[in-house]
Amino acid sequence: MDAVDAAAAAAAVDAVAELVDALPDGVVATAPDALEKYRFDWTHDARAGTPLAAVRAETAGHVQEVLRWASRHGIPVVPRGAGSGLSGGALAVDGAIVLSTERMRAVEIDTAARVAVVEPGALNVDVKRAASEYGLWYPPDPSSYEICSIGGNIATNAGGLCCVKYGVTTDYVLGLDVVLADGTLVTLGGSYVKDVAGLSLLKLFVGSEGTLGVVTRATLRLVPAPPPPATVVATFPSVAAAAAAVIELGRTLRASMVELMDQASVNSVEDFRPMGLDRDAGALLLIQCDAPGAARAEEVAVAVAACEVSGAKEVFATEDPEEGEMFVQARRLHFTALEARGAVLPEDVGVPVPRLPELLAAVEGIAQRHGVQIPMVAHAGDGNTHPAIIYTPGDDESERRARLAFDEVMAAAIALGGTITGEHGVGRLKAGSLEAQLGPDVMELNRRVKAALDPHGILNPGSFV
Amino acid sequence: MDAVDAAAAAAAVDAVAELVDALPDGVVATAPDALEKYRFDWTHDARAGTPLAAVRAETAGHVQEVLRWASRHGIPVVPRGAGSGLSGGALAVDGAIVLSTERMRAVEIDTAARVAVVEPGALNVDVKRAASEYGLWYPPDPSSYEICSIGGNIATNAGGLCCVKYGVTTDYVLGLDVVLADGTLVTLGGSYVKDVAGLSLLKLFVGSEGTLGVVTRATLRLVPAPPPPATVVATFPSVAAAAAAVIELGRTLRASMVELMDQASVNSVEDFRPMGLDRDAGALLLIQCDAPGAARAEEVAVAVAACEVSGAKEVFATEDPEEGEMFVQARRLHFTALEARGAVLPEDVGVPVPRLPELLAAVEGIAQRHGVQIPMVAHAGDGNTHPAIIYTPGDDESERRARLAFDEVMAAAIALGGTITGEHGVGRLKAGSLEAQLGPDVMELNRRVKAALDPHGILNPGSFV
Repeated sequence: MDAVDAAAAAAAVDAVAELVDALPDGVVATAPDALEKYRFDWTHDARAGTPLAAVRAETAGHVQEVLRWASRHGIPVVPRGAGSGLSGGALAVDGAIVLSTERMRAVEIDTAARVAVVEPGALNVDVKRAASEYGLWYPPDPSSYEICSIGGNIATNAGGLCCVKYGVTTDYVLGLDVVLADGTLVTLGGSYVKDVAGLSLLKLFVGSEGTLGVVTRATLRLVPAPPPPATVVATFPSVAAAAAAVIELGRTLRASMVELMDQASVNSVEDFRPMGLDRDAGALLLIQCDAPGAARAEEVAVAVAACEVSGAKEVFATEDPEEGEMFVQARRLHFTALEARGAVLPEDVGVPVPRLPELLAAVEGIAQRHGVQIPMVAHAGDGNTHPAIIYTPGDDESERRARLAFDEVMAAAIALGGTITGEHGVGRLKAGSLEAQLGPDVMELNRRVKAALDPHGILNPGSFV
Repeated sequence: MDAVDAAAAAAAVDAVAELVDALPDGVVATAPDALEKYRFDWTHDARAGTPLAAVRAETAGHVQEVLRWASRHGIPVVPRGAGSGLSGGALAVDGAIVLSTERMRAVEIDTAARVAVVEPGALNVDVKRAASEYGLWYPPDPSSYEICSIGGNIATNAGGLCCVKYGVTTDYVLGLDVVLADGTLVTLGGSYVKDVAGLSLLKLFVGSEGTLGVVTRATLRLVPAPPPPATVVATFPSVAAAAAAVIELGRTLRASMVELMDQASVNSVEDFRPMGLDRDAGALLLIQCDAPGAARAEEVAVAVAACEVSGAKEVFATEDPEEGEMFVQARRLHFTALEARGAVLPEDVGVPVPRLPELLAAVEGIAQRHGVQIPMVAHAGDGNTHPAIIYTPGDDESERRARLAFDEVMAAAIALGGTITGEHGVGRLKAGSLEAQLGPDVMELNRRVKAALDPHGILNPGSFV
């Protein structure tokens, strides 16, 4: 360590001591073993840095305190929700502070205004449960909904399985309290539904991945709970046939779920927890319809017909919500089942629905070319796919090939007029591919907006902007 | 005119000559009589300036040409759609250019991707008609949908009557081509549904009222057309009772329309075109339900019960879509009927739905206090109201009282935790009240983002930011 580094390190130690003093006991963690869990998100990326400290804020005031302090000392801040992110957006950075909202978990339901007022550390499932006590529903449902936080959902504009009918996180955010880089707390929107007063800053903060501010409170729109869904499960000889069915049903049907699993995904779930899925099918479609009353049966008939006309091997329909939920759980196990087999680079590419067959073919080609396994699920009705690139941890050659495949899958989506990320976010894992999608002019707009809101670049450095 | 002014005027004349030369014949209008119609929007505000020229762009290239030219000469640009705006966002400015997109009207439907690719001058109704040929639907439906343009809808994030169930313009914008202040054309989003690659710039441009860029193409999400609605018309002794019914039905029902007309609005529509509405009712609610099949009757029953329990005088329900549409047309006539009576300052304030009775009471009080008539309709299910402040054109005292009332209605909405504009935009009419709602910190964020995207302030100066 030279003299300059030594001086910087001493200054950082002093700065952290100042922060510890400014906040209540137990809010700031500095011990190396306590910090370990704040280094990683679900990408488990070995390139994660080591933070100076982790702050478990308990109030918006703590968040303001941290950001004022960080601005004063020029110390970067990595905001963190539940750490379930799949794009490396919350990976720690050397010399930074991790600012966790895990302790801010209040959820209040206002039935008359039909909103939930939520702190960012509340889990998605906490909001769903609280709303359901009043017959209300918070729709966005990432597969990780039982462990992911609302703050993270907002930061990534999270999607899920019901988006195909009910939309994504941004469609449900009516209001936000946000602490800016300099510690200023601003309130955007509120409990009202329609609002065009000024620029759409509310929507700008949604999906900004901690690069523009830290959300300390959200007002979320709730809707009356829909009727229980009927479920259609169809197997196909190939993913191409399944994709054709998706396009076909999309012409007329507003299904509440249109999920695709390829053969490798079905088999890895069956290996992990046998559920009697057809291991020989080239692909499986899982469709739900939730129109009220007798109309649901009509929707099911449309879904069944679309599968049959597209060459389905078998089509099974059930009106039993519990039986349907069993299939949905199988689908949700995809990522967990894969993780049990090795390390996973989770993809999240999307294309216009009509280009889905081409994307699926491209992914198959990439898997073969690089000799890697890429089991896949897709929110097929939205054209949003999750190829999961498997590699052997510690095997450099395996990891190298996986990363090549990861980049090529993104390139394939871009070539098909699509996106490198439909719902996970860019984070650190995809930051290098963003400009290939957006082009230099849109990248420059991203940088200008970032600079306007976080002029000293304190927030989530090394992330996408 | 002093020497400096004379030199500036001569320079402007030269600049306009340069623009006329750069664009095809007939694209640039400079004759005073031709310019007259580009001075005003539907606010007919006498404070409108006189532009140097009006450019009727025919291609995105023309728009780029204009903005490059404007940046070079430091000449401001007022973007303009169909001129049906109600907030003065397209009022001309002395010494500026009006940039109209009225000639860019192409509409293409892609049924497989379920999108419309639309030029900004296309009318809302053009998109609806083109989509309906394929059994598809573009939901946003401002009352002016037959005469307002998609570009204006995007600029204001326009709402309408079906928003209460189907959302507003921003919920349907998947992609935009935007020409920035310096003439750069950027493409944001595309034909894919889910996208979180980079900051949500797409959403930032929606509702930016021509202050950040000029939209030259939009990709709009379409949905399968819903079944025909049933209609419930209920009369109430007072607006308070009608508002109570709105809150009651909102607890469990997703109606596809929940409109309120007060007695004065009902009577002015009846004066304009007699339709047999109940002139004695204190308020009228117009509710539509469009659940498929037998479920629609269940929804109607919920709506009827909510009206009855809230003290409705009469409740009428019809399953005949044409009969229902007749009532909707009566509702849509509100503004036209009022304009036949005198000049109107159209309000657009919104509050959380539970505060609706307080807002309606406040508006009544303001009308009485200032001795002005304020007939009102409301997209009541969204808490978004349109008090219409009537004044006598040319009568200074009448206009003064109307403007006082206009400001006080906004103040009342802000005091109730609401917004000064739910769907019309801030424009020039409400620019002075924006900070009262947003506060200085959020105003500063608006200014910073504006400066980041339009550093020389070329776009729509004198508007809200």
